[in-house]
Amino acid sequence: MVKMKERLEQQMKFLLEVDKLKFINRQTYLSDASRKENDAEHSWHLAMFAILLSEYSNEKVDLTKVITMVLIHDIVEIDAGDTYAYDEAGNLTKREREVKAADRIFNLLPEDQGSRFRELWEEFEAYDTPEAKFAHVCDNVQPLMLNHATDGRSWRERGIRRSQVEKRNERIKEGSETMRAYIDEILNINVESGNLKDE
Amino acid sequence: MVKMKERLEQQMKFLLEVDKLKFINRQTYLSDASRKENDAEHSWHLAMFAILLSEYSNEKVDLTKVITMVLIHDIVEIDAGDTYAYDEAGNLTKREREVKAADRIFNLLPEDQGSRFRELWEEFEAYDTPEAKFAHVCDNVQPLMLNHATDGRSWRERGIRRSQVEKRNERIKEGSETMRAYIDEILNINVESGNLKDE
Repeated sequence: MVKMKERLEQQMKFLLEVDKLKFINRQTYLSDASRKENDAEHSWHLAMFAILLSEYSNEKVDLTKVITMVLIHDIVEIDAGDTYAYDEAGNLTKREREVKAADRIFNLLPEDQGSRFRELWEEFEAYDTPEAKFAHVCDNVQPLMLNHATDGRSWRERGIRRSQVEKRNERIKEGSETMRAYIDEILNINVESGNLKDE
Repeated sequence: MVKMKERLEQQMKFLLEVDKLKFINRQTYLSDASRKENDAEHSWHLAMFAILLSEYSNEKVDLTKVITMVLIHDIVEIDAGDTYAYDEAGNLTKREREVKAADRIFNLLPEDQGSRFRELWEEFEAYDTPEAKFAHVCDNVQPLMLNHATDGRSWRERGIRRSQVEKRNERIKEGSETMRAYIDEILNINVESGNLKDE
């Protein structure tokens, strides 16, 4: 009985801690461009992408694993902050900051659940399994959809080039050829309309 | 090929439409009380509750079903708005407004996926299956946790009575005796500290 109680307390402590994911803002604007998206909203949206688009994964995936992966993939940003995809300096220290965050945050949980989340996060980061590849498809396509919906607001503000977006998304095809083709169409339209610089 | 393309367009249209869930504010404050929570953040948080606490469900549940249910359970509020748990007038017209919303929004999807989401939403609303009961446990416990974390901010602002919260949560025990006991402790503490009126 005492063991159960302590376990539940650990779980509730983690669930309260991760409320902070709602405070971490990303660089992408919401579809009405009223404000930038936060990590909790983004994670919810990715889970919707995973559920609806998993039929386009190149390889068969365990959907529950993909969903859980996208729901927790940004939790390390509670400590490490959001590192913008095109921030080269920030990306040099990203891994170190995020590992430290994972050590602290996932360890709030009972050992079995903390280890499982840690492994799922590491699997996402390693980008090797069908589930990790498809989770990255979702993580890449969602901000592209929002950038497209807002006439490239975030790209325009920072003068982003098509080549930068291409580089950021070059591995989408490992997860889904279909979504890679879809993204190409979106990029063409945004270069034509001047939302992305063409070089 | 054309068929696939149309299907993907429908899916992307839905995924863009549900971005609006991020604009729907609830009455619960975030853990730092800086602002109120929106439906997308809330839905993400519920999925975390479902994943971590399903071991306390009275009956064995299909976890993927519970997760999907909580991720989509508030989508109807894009059209119908959030109806505060203690708004008696609003709750009289809630069902009608939400059914109309479900008709419009889930029909944006390809028929198979739209039907599946509609059925899951109706199952959640009907509160009959183990999955629906446990999804409601998550939906009830999460705002209580945040109210407790913010010294009952939302309760205090509206002068909410313990009996109102009890009524709102009277069915938690159908989904989880363990979480019912946990909630009782939380309510006792909040009545003692004056965050909830005791009547």
